[in-house]
Amino acid sequence: EPDTDLSYPSSLPPDEKEAFIEICDQLTVELLTELKSRYELPAEASEWVKKMIEYNVKGGKLNRGLTVVSVKRTIDAAKGRVLSTREFARAAVLGWCIEWLQAFFLVADDVMDDSVTRRGQPCWFRLPQVKLIAVNDSFILESNVFQILKRHFGHEPFYVTLFDLFREVTLQTELGQLLDLTSQPMDGQIDLQRFTPQRYQLIVKYKTAFYTFYLPIACGLILSGMGHPAALTTARRVCVLMGEYFQVQDDYLDCYGDPKLIGKVGTDIQDNKCSWLVVQALAKATPAQRTVLEAHYGKHEDSSVAAVKTLYREMGLEVLFKQYEEQSYTAIQKELDALPADIPRPVFELLLKKIYRRSK
Amino acid sequence: EPDTDLSYPSSLPPDEKEAFIEICDQLTVELLTELKSRYELPAEASEWVKKMIEYNVKGGKLNRGLTVVSVKRTIDAAKGRVLSTREFARAAVLGWCIEWLQAFFLVADDVMDDSVTRRGQPCWFRLPQVKLIAVNDSFILESNVFQILKRHFGHEPFYVTLFDLFREVTLQTELGQLLDLTSQPMDGQIDLQRFTPQRYQLIVKYKTAFYTFYLPIACGLILSGMGHPAALTTARRVCVLMGEYFQVQDDYLDCYGDPKLIGKVGTDIQDNKCSWLVVQALAKATPAQRTVLEAHYGKHEDSSVAAVKTLYREMGLEVLFKQYEEQSYTAIQKELDALPADIPRPVFELLLKKIYRRSK
Ligand SMILES: [Mg+2]
Ligand SMILES: [Mg+2]
Ligand SMILES: [Mg+2]
Ligand SMILES: [Mg+2]
Ligand SMILES: [Mg+2]
Ligand SMILES: [Mg+2]
Repeated sequence: EPDTDLSYPSSLPPDEKEAFIEICDQLTVELLTELKSRYELPAEASEWVKKMIEYNVKGGKLNRGLTVVSVKRTIDAAKGRVLSTREFARAAVLGWCIEWLQAFFLVADDVMDDSVTRRGQPCWFRLPQVKLIAVNDSFILESNVFQILKRHFGHEPFYVTLFDLFREVTLQTELGQLLDLTSQPMDGQIDLQRFTPQRYQLIVKYKTAFYTFYLPIACGLILSGMGHPAALTTARRVCVLMGEYFQVQDDYLDCYGDPKLIGKVGTDIQDNKCSWLVVQALAKATPAQRTVLEAHYGKHEDSSVAAVKTLYREMGLEVLFKQYEEQSYTAIQKELDALPADIPRPVFELLLKKIYRRSK
Repeated sequence: EPDTDLSYPSSLPPDEKEAFIEICDQLTVELLTELKSRYELPAEASEWVKKMIEYNVKGGKLNRGLTVVSVKRTIDAAKGRVLSTREFARAAVLGWCIEWLQAFFLVADDVMDDSVTRRGQPCWFRLPQVKLIAVNDSFILESNVFQILKRHFGHEPFYVTLFDLFREVTLQTELGQLLDLTSQPMDGQIDLQRFTPQRYQLIVKYKTAFYTFYLPIACGLILSGMGHPAALTTARRVCVLMGEYFQVQDDYLDCYGDPKLIGKVGTDIQDNKCSWLVVQALAKATPAQRTVLEAHYGKHEDSSVAAVKTLYREMGLEVLFKQYEEQSYTAIQKELDALPADIPRPVFELLLKKIYRRSK
């Protein structure tokens, strides 16, 4: 049966990110202790799980996890309250559930995409002693999410709401992956017909927006006793808009961003990605322009990449992006103007400020 | 929000297995309808999920799923009641959750084991249009389990108990897989030292016993309003014993069974499997006998397989198995003699009858 005497650190580092990371170490210890005592896991296998967690859960930017804390803090501040250390710790625990869930997605995504590196190190499945055991490891990471939820929130009245939320967002992300994985035929033939604005929007919404934007905000609302259906439905609508905006930016920066700032050289054109840019280009291409795309998109030669970029310039995609950015910002502001009184506007504005007109 | 007006067929075929299968078709329709309406899944992707479910969920022996129905029927019979069509259908729904969960495990297991066939057809990931999309498909199958639970049992007082049970058994099975996958070094070197009786018992318990024996019985108990911790703990103890007994038999039949009856020619020796036979042999081997095992176990040459089988005969493993079988049967009977009054003995005896002294 679950351990109900939960302990949290009595003090934490003043730096929010440092404090947040300390909670991860506590959760890892708890999980490993439970695997040993309740699940009889031998030392060798526990060592494996420990390494696997440390390799895959840590090292991200922690934006999703930290958002849970800032949403909880924002809502409490609106009521004139300041987070106690314990309240911070519990919000951080929920934040780490999202980081753990993301680790589950990323470990498996790298296997499916046959990727090479992730967060500056080889993908987990690339390690010679791991290989396809990574698939089962990704399952264990997913299970860890529910172990943490059960231990820390199993006795809360909102426990069912939380686990239904995590299950739903997990399914949504899996469906987004399915749409993404089946957006091009497996035989390697490129079929640009499938890159429609409708499909683009759906992939972004399901593969990214729910777990990146909606999940952290919904967690913060639920933890603050505001997980009623009306609030969650409103939050979802705003988050889907923000998630789409964020991904369109990501696609724009892949082509037009400064590699020094975004930390990589974009390869969406070479990789035949269903990017916002190619979707826009296809939607307004003349037959001649379409022929250029058919000939050069998804090819690795520098000349092909240059041909596509020239076409994008001709078609004015940079201007189109700026227009999209303004429209999207306005649409989000309109949603925020109509927020119900019990959801403080800064819940979303803090996130929006981080992403609006970003250059990295 | 979940659809609460659940409908079940008003009549079902008299044949239990046929009736059970009809429920699967209803569940598939419900899932696909929900994917379309609630998750906006386009027709092409729905088609994919439909094929994927049909390929992987159906076609098993359905023992686990049907056990939920027979446990529910047994408990009701002990109270002088007969299952209504609706009660049968709801027990079958829960039974299918286990079949779905197994499909999740098997699709992923075949990827990790690089297997060729499953249930008489190519493994799902072997299809040229599927490949590693199978990993994400296995996730969707797992999510389907929780979609079904939510839809059919989300308003029951025992919903949390069911949810926690499925999560816990999923984790247990993943840990069993981890133990199995790491029981031999990845570099292909064979290390028989890891085949200890302790490790064997742990792998069997976690990889097989919980989801094959405990889960169906626990589901039947919970559905019958008997999901209190004491009953579940007792059931778990008996099921772990039965699960171990079942796997030992499986290992025995792989070597000594009639291929015509078991439907395949055993290859545990060639495949370097951590079988009960090799574990017993290693535990009582003289240094000379151990040398024979080191030289021949895990090799594909007929002469090596023959050498191992000769050694097994010399060491009297057949007799050892008969002794184990008797001891195990006695231990299970002893547990059944001590069952609390509210758990009818036939709950377990029906299952035991199916597996005791089986030849296939
Ligand atoms: Mg990827
Ligand atoms: Mg991917
Ligand atoms: Mg990108
Ligand atoms: Mg296998
Ligand atoms: Mg396996
Ligand atoms: Mg076998």
